[in-house]
Amino acid sequence: MENFTFLSPTKIIFGRGVEDQVGEETKVYSKKVLLHYGGGTIKRIGLYDRVVKSLRDAGVEFIELGGVQPNPRLSLVKQGIELCRKHNIDFILAVGGGSVIDSAKAIAVGVPYEGDVWDFYSGKAVPEKALPVGVVLTIPAAGSEASKSSVITNEDGWYKRGLNVEIIRPKFAIMNPEITFTLPPYQTACGAADIMAHVMERYFTHQKDVDFTDRLCEATLKTIIKNVPIALEEPENYEARAEIMWASTIAHNDLLSTGRIGDWASHAIEHELSGIYDVPHGAGLAVVFPAWMKYVYKEDVDRFVQFATRVWDVEMDFANPERTALEGIHRLTQFFKKIGLPVTLEELGIPDDRLEEMADKCTNNGTKQIGNFRKLGREDVLNILKMARK
Amino acid sequence: MENFTFLSPTKIIFGRGVEDQVGEETKVYSKKVLLHYGGGTIKRIGLYDRVVKSLRDAGVEFIELGGVQPNPRLSLVKQGIELCRKHNIDFILAVGGGSVIDSAKAIAVGVPYEGDVWDFYSGKAVPEKALPVGVVLTIPAAGSEASKSSVITNEDGWYKRGLNVEIIRPKFAIMNPEITFTLPPYQTACGAADIMAHVMERYFTHQKDVDFTDRLCEATLKTIIKNVPIALEEPENYEARAEIMWASTIAHNDLLSTGRIGDWASHAIEHELSGIYDVPHGAGLAVVFPAWMKYVYKEDVDRFVQFATRVWDVEMDFANPERTALEGIHRLTQFFKKIGLPVTLEELGIPDDRLEEMADKCTNNGTKQIGNFRKLGREDVLNILKMARK
Repeated sequence: MENFTFLSPTKIIFGRGVEDQVGEETKVYSKKVLLHYGGGTIKRIGLYDRVVKSLRDAGVEFIELGGVQPNPRLSLVKQGIELCRKHNIDFILAVGGGSVIDSAKAIAVGVPYEGDVWDFYSGKAVPEKALPVGVVLTIPAAGSEASKSSVITNEDGWYKRGLNVEIIRPKFAIMNPEITFTLPPYQTACGAADIMAHVMERYFTHQKDVDFTDRLCEATLKTIIKNVPIALEEPENYEARAEIMWASTIAHNDLLSTGRIGDWASHAIEHELSGIYDVPHGAGLAVVFPAWMKYVYKEDVDRFVQFATRVWDVEMDFANPERTALEGIHRLTQFFKKIGLPVTLEELGIPDDRLEEMADKCTNNGTKQIGNFRKLGREDVLNILKMARK
Repeated sequence: MENFTFLSPTKIIFGRGVEDQVGEETKVYSKKVLLHYGGGTIKRIGLYDRVVKSLRDAGVEFIELGGVQPNPRLSLVKQGIELCRKHNIDFILAVGGGSVIDSAKAIAVGVPYEGDVWDFYSGKAVPEKALPVGVVLTIPAAGSEASKSSVITNEDGWYKRGLNVEIIRPKFAIMNPEITFTLPPYQTACGAADIMAHVMERYFTHQKDVDFTDRLCEATLKTIIKNVPIALEEPENYEARAEIMWASTIAHNDLLSTGRIGDWASHAIEHELSGIYDVPHGAGLAVVFPAWMKYVYKEDVDRFVQFATRVWDVEMDFANPERTALEGIHRLTQFFKKIGLPVTLEELGIPDDRLEEMADKCTNNGTKQIGNFRKLGREDVLNILKMARK
């Protein structure tokens, strides 16, 4: 086990009706906030009105900035930064899913910074200050509500890049599973793949003797595997929605990383897919992850055997452990199919003609390796993309 | 699943050599602290010297108060409160196990309070302010390093009572598994029972649809079951010690309580044993918990079946689930025996003559019920104590 520091100070307020507490939670930090959200969904389901009422009841003023798109864009982030500066705003309230929260985090680090906020995503600078961010979560997927991550897409070149720093962890996350009842099935499934990917990126490590966190990872994966099909069958099943929502936070608040080094190659590769083709991140992950697994499993067959037996209840083939390992990967792929996700680039609607370009971008034209379970260069990434074709 | 709020803001600094960071972590809060500890162990193993050096290097002054005993005493807490007031101290650094940390927390709430600090433990008052507390942990057991609990024994009547409030969660916990290499086997085993009890108190609930936290509980129990025998066999096995230490924190930082109502009757009963007879809390729990289980399992046989199959890998007896449930309780008892713990009052050295008195004290002379899985009155507590006799 590696030495580690773990601090996850986001206050989680979870359950039926908790969105009515947003005003009280927000006013602890500020009386004038940026209310940041996506499209019309939060208005259609009445959430917008409840949030606005709660803010007004608590005496919190707000300026609005809607319009966050999936794979949130740098241009809107810059608009948000200007808006905050103009109105002397010192708190961002994100009402939405991962895209809205990531956009809010980008605004939060951008406001106190004199340079271009993209510096933080391109790796040119590290943010030292951030406005506090609060969250009302609508989609269990990204885990951004309690994470130190933000991923933004720069339209200039369609680069999708991430920032990981402690100062952007939200102060609070208000999570009512009822709000997720109206999520379309495809979005529920994409969320599931995202949650599972967050766990699997951490699970596939060469670090020995991390059995406790292994088991916490397995617990989280099993929760998703059990409850997502229930939620798809019965969209208003509160209990299934609640299990998924709480698991999505724990999947990415870094508890599951403690003492170990994760991989994160599949995320890096997927960012090239959704950066160029604007596909849902979760759908991209459902395509990339099984291909990555097939490409790298020989690095540590035992770990894939553990994944197969403990997560998927595959019976151990003691005479042929590799068969057990492969069966685990197969079960994962079948699960993604069962919940309605694509598992090939073809199914995702991505043609073959820009695979080289994606491999280039992902590895900085072959000058950079990605991943830790197996270090991957440009050719490796290209091979994985080719394996994912159909 | 119940609505919940979860906030666990203790900064965990974990791994080899991390005690050298205590000065830097402490000076964020204060330049003059109370250094609170137990007996001579921390001096014998060199920890005291390393902590003192780190504090001095960071320019942190300290006043010392050693002498915390297992089942920490109110009289020493009162001495600590006086000392802090006299020297204008505004931070308590606890170097030790659960007893030292609990004592530090009691001092922390006592200093800013004009009345008797016991008011908070007797339920007469609720603390509104507390000095910040930091921890260098030496024993994985109580989970007090990241919990909102403190348990103190009042020598006047030998009442052992607990306080549970958010404001006493430590600011940081410095945890080096190497420090636990020299723990005597019996203390390691008592710690294991304490950790397992913290999980089991939460696990046995009537709350339905809490499968995610069930699985997190099972992951934690399996970690203890696997690693404690290794640590007993090889006291300097870093990896086993590390798994136990990290599991002990997660067992009691309230993650495993989210969305559910725990039981806590066994803890209440045990407090009467260690309050009167000054036995180690973990040893008392190893005696009480199996007896409690045998007394209450019929309330929800299915939950005990799940415990047996998922935690102890008991094969399900579909024709006779009750047999499976009982086998789980049996395996727990056998595990406690295997790691060298008493499982009867007789083995713990507690005679039969004061069982009535303990049942009285535990239930406030029969006026109060304890537990949630099954509400227990005075006669129930007496029955459990009688079942635990031999």
